[in-house]
Amino acid sequence: MTPPRPVRLAMVGGGLDAFIGAVHRHAARLDGRYDLVAGALSSTPEKSRASGAALGLSPERVYGSWQELVQGERHRPDGAEVLSIVTPNHLHYPVALAAVQARYHVICDKPLVHTLEQAQALADAAQRAGTVFAVTYNYSGYPLIRQAREMVQTGQLGELRKVVVEYHQGWLATEQHSKQAVWRTDPRLSGPAGVLGDLGTHAEQLMRFVTGLEIDELIAELTHFLPGRALDDDATALLRFRNGARGVLTVSQIEIGRENDLRLSVFGTQGSLHWRQEDPNRLLWDRLDAPQQVLTRGGPGLGQAAASVTRLPSGHPEAFIEAFATLYTAVADDILAREQGQVRPPDYPTVREGLEGVKFVDRALKSAASGRWVKF
Amino acid sequence: MTPPRPVRLAMVGGGLDAFIGAVHRHAARLDGRYDLVAGALSSTPEKSRASGAALGLSPERVYGSWQELVQGERHRPDGAEVLSIVTPNHLHYPVALAAVQARYHVICDKPLVHTLEQAQALADAAQRAGTVFAVTYNYSGYPLIRQAREMVQTGQLGELRKVVVEYHQGWLATEQHSKQAVWRTDPRLSGPAGVLGDLGTHAEQLMRFVTGLEIDELIAELTHFLPGRALDDDATALLRFRNGARGVLTVSQIEIGRENDLRLSVFGTQGSLHWRQEDPNRLLWDRLDAPQQVLTRGGPGLGQAAASVTRLPSGHPEAFIEAFATLYTAVADDILAREQGQVRPPDYPTVREGLEGVKFVDRALKSAASGRWVKF
Amino acid sequence: MTPPRPVRLAMVGGGLDAFIGAVHRHAARLDGRYDLVAGALSSTPEKSRASGAALGLSPERVYGSWQELVQGERHRPDGAEVLSIVTPNHLHYPVALAAVQARYHVICDKPLVHTLEQAQALADAAQRAGTVFAVTYNYSGYPLIRQAREMVQTGQLGELRKVVVEYHQGWLATEQHSKQAVWRTDPRLSGPAGVLGDLGTHAEQLMRFVTGLEIDELIAELTHFLPGRALDDDATALLRFRNGARGVLTVSQIEIGRENDLRLSVFGTQGSLHWRQEDPNRLLWDRLDAPQQVLTRGGPGLGQAAASVTRLPSGHPEAFIEAFATLYTAVADDILAREQGQVRPPDYPTVREGLEGVKFVDRALKSAASGRWVKF
Amino acid sequence: MTPPRPVRLAMVGGGLDAFIGAVHRHAARLDGRYDLVAGALSSTPEKSRASGAALGLSPERVYGSWQELVQGERHRPDGAEVLSIVTPNHLHYPVALAAVQARYHVICDKPLVHTLEQAQALADAAQRAGTVFAVTYNYSGYPLIRQAREMVQTGQLGELRKVVVEYHQGWLATEQHSKQAVWRTDPRLSGPAGVLGDLGTHAEQLMRFVTGLEIDELIAELTHFLPGRALDDDATALLRFRNGARGVLTVSQIEIGRENDLRLSVFGTQGSLHWRQEDPNRLLWDRLDAPQQVLTRGGPGLGQAAASVTRLPSGHPEAFIEAFATLYTAVADDILAREQGQVRPPDYPTVREGLEGVKFVDRALKSAASGRWVKF
Repeated sequence: MTPPRPVRLAMVGGGLDAFIGAVHRHAARLDGRYDLVAGALSSTPEKSRASGAALGLSPERVYGSWQELVQGERHRPDGAEVLSIVTPNHLHYPVALAAVQARYHVICDKPLVHTLEQAQALADAAQRAGTVFAVTYNYSGYPLIRQAREMVQTGQLGELRKVVVEYHQGWLATEQHSKQAVWRTDPRLSGPAGVLGDLGTHAEQLMRFVTGLEIDELIAELTHFLPGRALDDDATALLRFRNGARGVLTVSQIEIGRENDLRLSVFGTQGSLHWRQEDPNRLLWDRLDAPQQVLTRGGPGLGQAAASVTRLPSGHPEAFIEAFATLYTAVADDILAREQGQVRPPDYPTVREGLEGVKFVDRALKSAASGRWVKF
Repeated sequence: MTPPRPVRLAMVGGGLDAFIGAVHRHAARLDGRYDLVAGALSSTPEKSRASGAALGLSPERVYGSWQELVQGERHRPDGAEVLSIVTPNHLHYPVALAAVQARYHVICDKPLVHTLEQAQALADAAQRAGTVFAVTYNYSGYPLIRQAREMVQTGQLGELRKVVVEYHQGWLATEQHSKQAVWRTDPRLSGPAGVLGDLGTHAEQLMRFVTGLEIDELIAELTHFLPGRALDDDATALLRFRNGARGVLTVSQIEIGRENDLRLSVFGTQGSLHWRQEDPNRLLWDRLDAPQQVLTRGGPGLGQAAASVTRLPSGHPEAFIEAFATLYTAVADDILAREQGQVRPPDYPTVREGLEGVKFVDRALKSAASGRWVKF
Repeated sequence: MTPPRPVRLAMVGGGLDAFIGAVHRHAARLDGRYDLVAGALSSTPEKSRASGAALGLSPERVYGSWQELVQGERHRPDGAEVLSIVTPNHLHYPVALAAVQARYHVICDKPLVHTLEQAQALADAAQRAGTVFAVTYNYSGYPLIRQAREMVQTGQLGELRKVVVEYHQGWLATEQHSKQAVWRTDPRLSGPAGVLGDLGTHAEQLMRFVTGLEIDELIAELTHFLPGRALDDDATALLRFRNGARGVLTVSQIEIGRENDLRLSVFGTQGSLHWRQEDPNRLLWDRLDAPQQVLTRGGPGLGQAAASVTRLPSGHPEAFIEAFATLYTAVADDILAREQGQVRPPDYPTVREGLEGVKFVDRALKSAASGRWVKF
Repeated sequence: MTPPRPVRLAMVGGGLDAFIGAVHRHAARLDGRYDLVAGALSSTPEKSRASGAALGLSPERVYGSWQELVQGERHRPDGAEVLSIVTPNHLHYPVALAAVQARYHVICDKPLVHTLEQAQALADAAQRAGTVFAVTYNYSGYPLIRQAREMVQTGQLGELRKVVVEYHQGWLATEQHSKQAVWRTDPRLSGPAGVLGDLGTHAEQLMRFVTGLEIDELIAELTHFLPGRALDDDATALLRFRNGARGVLTVSQIEIGRENDLRLSVFGTQGSLHWRQEDPNRLLWDRLDAPQQVLTRGGPGLGQAAASVTRLPSGHPEAFIEAFATLYTAVADDILAREQGQVRPPDYPTVREGLEGVKFVDRALKSAASGRWVKF
């Protein structure tokens, strides 16, 4: 038994002052499955070079623009195989499209793109290219989210009736001038939705990932509480699923004191599940006419789905980086498997989930504009 | 200083097998402010007599019907002064109307009545009669709810932006045949709404009591998950308030494992508050750019509003009965004050709040039927 | 079926400014089983009269001293049957002894008395008199404490190995001048122990009540952290039980921020239980190789012991007063049963438990003085 | 700015079936500061080779014994600079001594060694050699532990009065036959103490790290609950500190349901702190006469000590691996600083803390054997 070879990774975006770039690098490093070999890390060549040096990249592989990177790496024998796209949202589309067309594998942050047309174009391109295209809906990497999904799939909750997903933050409750805040509230960089794109797509994907339910209709209410803010900073949608189940999805960035409080509750005819991202090593399970059970990561009563993405024994908490790394590792596995000609269903979110997220935003915006229920 | 004289209380409904009747009696007893002197306790004279005997009522003051009670007590020199109406909902209107017209004070359970017309008629009758008419929105009796209200009123949260109120139960997740369940799912006894009337009115009143916000528009989604059930067992409403704030109200009786999980979150420009009925001695307070503070009943940092309804030192938990008793005691105080010719604003929920609750149900039903936002 | 007649109650101590007197009155009132008929409520006749008037006692039954009360009530046909003794500790002994000798039933606060000799004398006197002698170890009235005890007794934890009982307060972390604080830190009024008597006896009784374990040996460490304080304000004891189990008992009144945080954990060969007084409606149950279960008062999976002292459905929290009232009601039941000639094991803590508490304090003081393990 | 060069790491122990070896590798990888270049990974050459291959080590640098590794790496120009020793405890001493003598830096797991003499010898050798010698008391790497320490040091708790440290596990509540369990309960491999060495040393170090308090005297009670088990599986010690403060340290591996529940409470004259390893992103802070504050990693109100070891924004939980990695990264920093001739106080636990832990075990064993308080 030998270890799998490291996959060669390049980053677009993710310079030193970017939050999410560092997360992707931690995630890529944790399981030792990647070598970071190249980058176009910032919006200017100078900043990109400084970031590349600080990351120890070889100077000739620090590119002044993403176009140069896509071009420069493709013909090297040791060229990057996969591009992580961690720019502000408006660049996801051109970078990803160029990357796919140049046959790179892609790991793209969410929300995927600004429009349904762009999303569909990327999905089509990836299918044609036969490359890996992952979208970092990272919360689906948590072991107890895998457990919840397995419990739904094996019928332990009975037939699903109701799903509630909430994603609460408070950091945009006042006017903010950080780089993070500025691009997230600028429609040119962030796209047509604010919190709905930033958090709502995570919430929608998590709900779908765990439950498998398909939205049939929705009505949404979008609000921006800060004067002059161009995009929504608070949103709630009521959902009707095709099987008759109902849902509530609520996201906000103006709830003072809330940090990164993503929660999911699933209710079926036989039981319920509750999970919180800020307390990710526990899953509360209520069964009909029985006391609540507290499932813990690594603890008794868990299934194979959770076990396969668990690194530590129970009581030794795993958290955000570990869940993120689980996606990176699954992508590395799939890249190597494809190299061997193996085809298997991806166990990470793909461009398909990215497209669903864009569609969710599109439908919610239409509903909010009209004040009506709209078909999904 | 001598203690106030006990107020003479009669009950309509609340026989031995009724949950809420026993709660009212505990609440009336706790502070020693009432004598229970008469009752029409059940739907049949035989059952009423048995319940009356078990409660130690004098046999001649155990009535076979509420009509006989209203008639029988009014001319006795020691007759009941106040009637607690704890019947299934459909009797609230005729009993309360007769009681007010006969100049009894009234303590009525919620939801007040089935229709806006009935609610308005009761409100008008009580105003004409000049009698006390309390509605037992008991959760507004909790000390930390009083604290939350005071903090809102004194501007500690800034301007309000968002309110979320949730009331989760699970006991109707399956077909139930208990007396409690049967009348709550029968439109003839319960009125046109199920969980919306039973829990939704509590939620709406709690939100209004704490925030003072006035609903301007709402859209509601009502669902019944059990085949053959005639009334909603799950409901969510999105709210727009007159000041521009937004709200979400969600209630359910099909969430397996949830017991009596009423929660309130209030978000303003300066801070947030969070409270749960099942953990009622704590109030979580988030302030802009400061760590969360945990306010405790009886603990440091609390105001006069909470202190005035607190019986025990911090760490010695008070709970459901105590909060309920706070309303009963406030009613007794007001009855005695009126006896002395004193007029003062009631510090308990009145028929006005009862009317608001009926209006909320009415508007939510209209919205759910049309799938549209409706004016409040 | 008719209700039991109310038992006639007198109070010694418990004037208007006393915390615990009001608690006893709430507890006596909640279930409607007592009439408060007389009192010697304060240390001076004037204050006693003022308190008696405020409580609505008949002036001739408000006594200037406990001696007068014991004398005055015994020959009235409507005289008090039971005396609640809620004075500072140093009066427990003379009052209780006189009361028992005059054939009153007694409800006495804890710690019972200052010395083992006094405790034995009371136990002997009560046995000779054949009267009820309850000690208000009120925490044993909580429904989930009854559940825990039943689970131990029915073997659901297997053989017991370890017990940890903690009682944390912080209100004496600084010099205090309230009446409550002054007598608790004065050896003439409080007895030879400070926190050990005040909280340690509660902790010891709760541990014994739930587990039935008998202490064989102990070593204790007593500390007083405030300069000039005469009695311990922090204490920990290591325990060896006769069956080989081990225990830790720790109590403090100088832990800033702790309110009334009594906790019990019991560990056996098959499972564990955890309970907290400040969250009294939940009992955490760990079983070998199974997820933790959360038992709730009134919820699924509970036994008869809890059910018999439960007033409200699950999710409608009960708390401190309710648990206290459970003892009062059990005492009333026993008084009436003895009136009928029925003899039955008391289901409330008696003078025997009071004696055990005094013995625990005695042994812990001896151990602390010598720095050695001592036999119990 | 360029990144620091990676430090060359070899492991002794930590083969594929070892829990702690994988943790060390994750910790070494997370921040990208090490290259794993060599190993003597298992007790037999065959197993070592298999593990080395699976880790991708070059075959000639997978050694059949630790002696060969120490010898083989020292003269290579690319030889390992630092040895991580993650064997069962009995090998810590010979491996570490040989490593230090050969001028390797050392990262050693805890408890350091079996005897005070060995510990002193290692401390002396490391001092003579001038090499880094870290001991992986990993819990001191948590950001909120750094915050707690800073708050103590800056006087925010006032003068310290009491410290309680608990470390609860349950996995040895029954006879276990896993490799992990077998060596931990075998005195030849584990040393003279069981849970006291395994968990007690963590607890003692955490207490000292945060408070700086020096133990003056202690009394300990050690128990083993499983028949035939040679070492303690439950232990409690009462502590007297030199400044007059008191402490309780309690550790167990037989508490069914407990996973890895390390807790620390610190009480001073001005406030208290509470932290739990299983909920590591929150620190509860009680201040005199003020509501409790909930400090969160990355949240408002935190100091520089926490910030300097924080990777993610608040609400994005960090956990066990991250805290462990913080020690590894500090060691890498120190190795490179020494290379530059810089001398600075280590900000990771060293052989001195390892020695203190061995001393703590020694004193606790002596006390338990005699049943007496012993000087530290």
